Amino acid sequence: MAFVRTVRTRVRVRYAETDQMGVVYHSNYFPWMEMGRVELCRANGIRYRDLEANDGILLAVAEVACRFHHPARYDDEVDIDAFIIKAHPRMVTFGYRMTHAETGRKLATGETRHVFVGRDMKPCKLPPKYFEVFGIDPRQE
Amino acid sequence: MAFVRTVRTRVRVRYAETDQMGVVYHSNYFPWMEMGRVELCRANGIRYRDLEANDGILLAVAEVACRFHHPARYDDEVDIDAFIIKAHPRMVTFGYRMTHAETGRKLATGETRHVFVGRDMKPCKLPPKYFEVFGIDPRQE
Amino acid sequence: MAFVRTVRTRVRVRYAETDQMGVVYHSNYFPWMEMGRVELCRANGIRYRDLEANDGILLAVAEVACRFHHPARYDDEVDIDAFIIKAHPRMVTFGYRMTHAETGRKLATGETRHVFVGRDMKPCKLPPKYFEVFGIDPRQE
Amino acid sequence: MAFVRTVRTRVRVRYAETDQMGVVYHSNYFPWMEMGRVELCRANGIRYRDLEANDGILLAVAEVACRFHHPARYDDEVDIDAFIIKAHPRMVTFGYRMTHAETGRKLATGETRHVFVGRDMKPCKLPPKYFEVFGIDPRQE
Repeated sequence: MAFVRTVRTRVRVRYAETDQMGVVYHSNYFPWMEMGRVELCRANGIRYRDLEANDGILLAVAEVACRFHHPARYDDEVDIDAFIIKAHPRMVTFGYRMTHAETGRKLATGETRHVFVGRDMKPCKLPPKYFEVFGIDPRQE
Repeated sequence: MAFVRTVRTRVRVRYAETDQMGVVYHSNYFPWMEMGRVELCRANGIRYRDLEANDGILLAVAEVACRFHHPARYDDEVDIDAFIIKAHPRMVTFGYRMTHAETGRKLATGETRHVFVGRDMKPCKLPPKYFEVFGIDPRQE
Repeated sequence: MAFVRTVRTRVRVRYAETDQMGVVYHSNYFPWMEMGRVELCRANGIRYRDLEANDGILLAVAEVACRFHHPARYDDEVDIDAFIIKAHPRMVTFGYRMTHAETGRKLATGETRHVFVGRDMKPCKLPPKYFEVFGIDPRQE
Repeated sequence: MAFVRTVRTRVRVRYAETDQMGVVYHSNYFPWMEMGRVELCRANGIRYRDLEANDGILLAVAEVACRFHHPARYDDEVDIDAFIIKAHPRMVTFGYRMTHAETGRKLATGETRHVFVGRDMKPCKLPPKYFEVFGIDPRQE
């Protein structure tokens, strides 16, 4: 199975996600990015939920960043493009590009860096059977 | 130790809690109620966190309701009065009254009913040592 | 156009919506209900966003309730059925039934009552052109 | 009045802010930072709410970043230190340091960059009367 580089997920802005400025409150872009990376994993053959439940591998968030270009508004449909920037057996960095579905206007770009951890929240090495999911070269093991 | 009937907790409205109507989005009153009941437990000698961690007793939410009288706005200070409406070894119902701290105006009233469950999310009986916390008559056991 | 009684909207549980109990935090069902009623309005020919933007009519939340039957979990797909319980020119009550998409298991049932208000948050009467959207009998005007 | 460089705000972790990993969900650190910068403004003599209401000046979020060092957990008290990294009449960058109140352990560090905008969301220049609040040198005008 070829590695899927980028996955697009669509979300509609909820009223709950707006603030009194009349736009989406900035922290609400992060759950959208989360939706994007979960769908990217799914496209590469794995449910993030199973990774946690079956193998006790969690992706602890180590660092996040987001740049806001244009505000998303209530009821807008937003496309989230998620892709992997770099990955190795201890860490993975995802990138995101969020655009207004109707106009294609760029809304925000983001990045999240994750560390693979066990249920005890201690860093661990990703089992080789999951290398493909994150596009890790097996020789990196 | 005498049972504390009502505990008042103060919260300041966050920008993130408003919506584009310029008022607090309705679902955000529920985390405030949660803060109220947690402080009520603390006033009665127990950290809810320890109940979960030490005894594996969780308060699963079975039913909630809230009536909104007047909107809370950004940066308002809100007083949450939490009290127990009824409790027995399998269930507890909390009541809440939220008022605008500065003016005393009633903002909302709520109710949440909880079932005691174990870590497996199955209903269980509250251990007698915790009866006092919830004001349960020991003869109810 | 015939009045659409019930609309089904599907949502996938976000990681952000879970809590440390491993289930969806209870207040997060309310934004789902909001999604349900917005789609019900859309199915009856009106974008809630236009109602606000063009006519300055807002649906202020007056009362909400939810009963939780079975917990929703991360990555579950949830179907939200939204319908109108009663409506007249000053008020509308929506009902909701949330089920686990894969198994059909009932997760929660809810109700939200709304008052039509103007931009000043004062109660107002719904303009007759919108009666159909909420299934209001024109003779009620 | 001397310019206050750093303000400390304390917050207690809400159950609603945790996720199924048993720690605070990463996006929830951003509303904490918001609380921090609002208190920093207050310490320097201005309510952010009045800036919006009276002068129509809003701080649109242009860029955010957060680095997570150690997870915050339910019921922990967290100290948020907020300070200004740089400011000029069109833009302000805040920095944040979040620590575990009891142990002093560093939890997270963040940064948010804001553009001053009018009610129309278009960039504007901060009126000189507010320069002091953000520690802007009046000669920068």
